[in-house]
Amino acid sequence: MNLSPQLTALISQLPAFDGSVAAAARSRQDELTKPQGSLGELEALSIQVAGITGCLAAEIEPAAVIVAAAEHGVCEEGVSAFPAEVTTQMVTNFLHGTAAINALARNCNAEVFIVDAGISSECPDHKKLHRLGFGKGSANFAKQAAMKKGEAESIIEGGAACAKKIHQQGIRMISLGEMGIGNTTAAAAVVAVVTDSSPSSATGRGTMIDDDTWRKKVSVIEQAIAKHQPDSKDAIGILSAFGGYETGFLCGCILGAASCRMPVILDGYPTSAAALLAELICPGIKNFMIAGHCSAEPGHRLALDHLELKPLLNLSMRLGEGSGAALAIPIVNAAVRCLNEMATFEEAAVAGRKT
Amino acid sequence: MNLSPQLTALISQLPAFDGSVAAAARSRQDELTKPQGSLGELEALSIQVAGITGCLAAEIEPAAVIVAAAEHGVCEEGVSAFPAEVTTQMVTNFLHGTAAINALARNCNAEVFIVDAGISSECPDHKKLHRLGFGKGSANFAKQAAMKKGEAESIIEGGAACAKKIHQQGIRMISLGEMGIGNTTAAAAVVAVVTDSSPSSATGRGTMIDDDTWRKKVSVIEQAIAKHQPDSKDAIGILSAFGGYETGFLCGCILGAASCRMPVILDGYPTSAAALLAELICPGIKNFMIAGHCSAEPGHRLALDHLELKPLLNLSMRLGEGSGAALAIPIVNAAVRCLNEMATFEEAAVAGRKT
Repeated sequence: MNLSPQLTALISQLPAFDGSVAAAARSRQDELTKPQGSLGELEALSIQVAGITGCLAAEIEPAAVIVAAAEHGVCEEGVSAFPAEVTTQMVTNFLHGTAAINALARNCNAEVFIVDAGISSECPDHKKLHRLGFGKGSANFAKQAAMKKGEAESIIEGGAACAKKIHQQGIRMISLGEMGIGNTTAAAAVVAVVTDSSPSSATGRGTMIDDDTWRKKVSVIEQAIAKHQPDSKDAIGILSAFGGYETGFLCGCILGAASCRMPVILDGYPTSAAALLAELICPGIKNFMIAGHCSAEPGHRLALDHLELKPLLNLSMRLGEGSGAALAIPIVNAAVRCLNEMATFEEAAVAGRKT
Repeated sequence: MNLSPQLTALISQLPAFDGSVAAAARSRQDELTKPQGSLGELEALSIQVAGITGCLAAEIEPAAVIVAAAEHGVCEEGVSAFPAEVTTQMVTNFLHGTAAINALARNCNAEVFIVDAGISSECPDHKKLHRLGFGKGSANFAKQAAMKKGEAESIIEGGAACAKKIHQQGIRMISLGEMGIGNTTAAAAVVAVVTDSSPSSATGRGTMIDDDTWRKKVSVIEQAIAKHQPDSKDAIGILSAFGGYETGFLCGCILGAASCRMPVILDGYPTSAAALLAELICPGIKNFMIAGHCSAEPGHRLALDHLELKPLLNLSMRLGEGSGAALAIPIVNAAVRCLNEMATFEEAAVAGRKT
């Protein structure tokens, strides 16, 4: 895969997951005042965060929620139950602080960053709206490539720069979210190609489309894969074929977060498509990812299995916006607190198991 | 079932789950800016909390974590991997703020109340330790009743009084936890009797006991059920037969919390035994309960199914202390925030589904 000089440089500088710190965290978990293993997945999570950050006493607060929004030309094909203008309307809702993701972010003291990664409609300037200037959404991938390869690279670079910038502002963990009517169609195409799955197994109901719309959605994806014939290892080729702009941006956020040793919490189906592209660009970067939840979209499980990620929550959520990822933030914080704030059996003078 | 005058009076005054407020919450969920149902279990949770509190805009913060500790005479039978003195040692650890439950409570700004419901060893006075003076733990139920029926009633009344008192102090939701070496043995006996299950299906590995100890644990429970022959509908009879004191106390906490319209988050196996007893005393009180998680103890699922409760988390935790319940507090808060802080489609001027 040929990458731009900027992306090549970024990847060459990415730190490795720190296995020795992770091993030290494993040892400490086994000495804490609880039966070994009794904190279940929280123990594994604390060990992973130690390896990501390179610190036994990891600092992962405050977290930020990044919600990237973009429009999808494929909506012209009638693949969604909602009209395309909802993307911009929901961005306005985010900026007003009255969407689900705002409530969920307030619930865990996370800052919300709203990113216009490609909105066609007018959206008023707002101090919380970060504009990228990468055009007005993807082209209809049923008819042409969603974007040019150069654009695909630029949007990934934009995401990486954003993650680095918010790290400089003091953020220590990011959770990813998206908004884009039509983006589960793009995600299904990406997931089908990368995981070598059939479009029908990768395609879900999105915002609860009916049977006819679902069949149309599958057909659009099948025909687009046949038309673009993407190489399943070529992240830039896949992104430029199907989009969306927010997918590329979130892929870049993952690269940028890893470069700063920040854990990245994934949300639902579109963010898992971004994660698959990041793993293609930089194999092993999945070690920096945490699956916040498993969404009701059936293809989400395909993507998480491919990345060997086990979701923390399974609450039948299928909203997107980063809602499942934000809900997982307190769980990740809890895991790190247990590792760092609990006494060992020796420190607390608690008797161990009978011998 | 004959109950003490105090318990009879308490139960007669318990408020009903408010179905009309719950219905109003359901209607509001369907108008919020998201595809209907897309917040999954969070929607059901917000509706339940509305019905519990009788308020659409429910106030459930701050929450408290109640950890009740007691000793179990049945430990004499060799049913646990840890020595009995660990109960008191862990109470000291709780008071020092260095156990898992302390870290988890800090993670969600919940206050921790440690209750000595029956500890035999000396434990120094501490401003955070609430002593009940109900003796020094249960008798060995392999040989005699765990406690007298009058004690069983008194400890339940003590739990109810505690929940009411902390409500007066401003707490608006409680999560339950326990500490007591040997208490999964008592819990298994209670669950087997109430759910009419075999002791072997209700008995788990507790703190990871070996095969021989597990068989002994099952045998002790089988023989004790044959000896005491409890009536499966008689909560006081079951509690007095098997204990423990903390189980009775937590059962009382549920009654007291419901009397103040506070949601109650259950933790693992021993708290589910307390919940089964509360449901026997006051059928329908399960509507005030939220299952924080499903523990790795196999019998926990039997109890939750009997109560028709669906756990929020499933992270292979098996620690107790209220750890799984405390981890669920932010999720319940999140559900209520979404219901109250999100805009409707009309308020936000977001277009609905295509018609």
